[in-house]
Amino acid sequence: MELVIGTKKWSTWSLRPWLALKKTGAPFTERLIQLRQGSGTEQAISPHSPSGLVPALHDGDLVVWDSLAICEYLAEKFPEAGLWPADPAARAQARSAAAEMHSGFSSLRGECPMDLAAEPRVVDLSDATHKDIRRIVALWNQMLTRWGGPYLAGAEYGIVDAFFTPVATRFRTYGVVLSSFGDTGPAGAYAERLLERPEFLAWQADI
Amino acid sequence: MELVIGTKKWSTWSLRPWLALKKTGAPFTERLIQLRQGSGTEQAISPHSPSGLVPALHDGDLVVWDSLAICEYLAEKFPEAGLWPADPAARAQARSAAAEMHSGFSSLRGECPMDLAAEPRVVDLSDATHKDIRRIVALWNQMLTRWGGPYLAGAEYGIVDAFFTPVATRFRTYGVVLSSFGDTGPAGAYAERLLERPEFLAWQADI
Repeated sequence: MELVIGTKKWSTWSLRPWLALKKTGAPFTERLIQLRQGSGTEQAISPHSPSGLVPALHDGDLVVWDSLAICEYLAEKFPEAGLWPADPAARAQARSAAAEMHSGFSSLRGECPMDLAAEPRVVDLSDATHKDIRRIVALWNQMLTRWGGPYLAGAEYGIVDAFFTPVATRFRTYGVVLSSFGDTGPAGAYAERLLERPEFLAWQADI
Repeated sequence: MELVIGTKKWSTWSLRPWLALKKTGAPFTERLIQLRQGSGTEQAISPHSPSGLVPALHDGDLVVWDSLAICEYLAEKFPEAGLWPADPAARAQARSAAAEMHSGFSSLRGECPMDLAAEPRVVDLSDATHKDIRRIVALWNQMLTRWGGPYLAGAEYGIVDAFFTPVATRFRTYGVVLSSFGDTGPAGAYAERLLERPEFLAWQADI
């Protein structure tokens, strides 16, 4: 398998399936494409991804070109990796949270872009970003309580946790203190837990 | 099962899982919430959906709160409905296309909002929307060719087709002629096919 990814310090979309793939333990190669090179980036991506976007997974002659679809493909191919929880209700909620991240939180994304090479700094956040963060805190707390932690859908680190890992890096980079957004402790501890995972540390070591 | 949905003429997010649920043939009730009522809408949704957004599916005490996650849940619960193709490679590409729609095409969404009650009219489209439409045409043509049609992932109407149905309504409402965007016929015929499906006609009859 080859995973086509973008610049590691910036590409949240690439990070998510990379973490899931790392969790499977399966061997894979990376094809790294430098982002933010104007039309050069588009030209570099297009031979490898039909959407013109990263990431894309190549497995033989099959191309899977969306981050969430790549994760679903890996969950089917490596059922023993526990990428989704085995319980159907936990799985449905894990998918809800991952898909909410996939399509939502645009204000947080825009104001607090992931930059793993940046020095931490505090920035002013808009009302819309405040709302995004409050929702994330509520979601994390609700799922950690319902499924018992330490990960969002229970005992096993999986796709839904990979999906929220870029958010945890944003909170660290931009000095977002979750207790100001309704957290009594569990959400902040969960964010730290995501950044201590061996899969994430392996990605971060290579920026 | 109860599906919480928004105003039928506007809510693309609600339409997609509604079509998938209709395809299963399973009985369900609707809880319809009027959108665009300011804070009243938010207050009306929040008891029924933890994200504060529609749609949400209630099945017993389980809440599934994202449109794509609802579709995945239905695909698992009703395997005989064929909501995803049986072939793993076709399924991976169907998921890629559905997830690309879930997170992307923001320019088309913004400039051409779904309005099933509107009279057709031609509007000026930005370069970004032109690019979105060209990508959709290329995607449809590629999948119709690879999987043999008449639906995107082959013989069976499923989730990926439900996901692109709002786009087909936009093309109709805003007079988008796909031959101007690289289509030689198949994409336009596919868009018409989506709007002739009994599931969509049932939704449209109730706007």
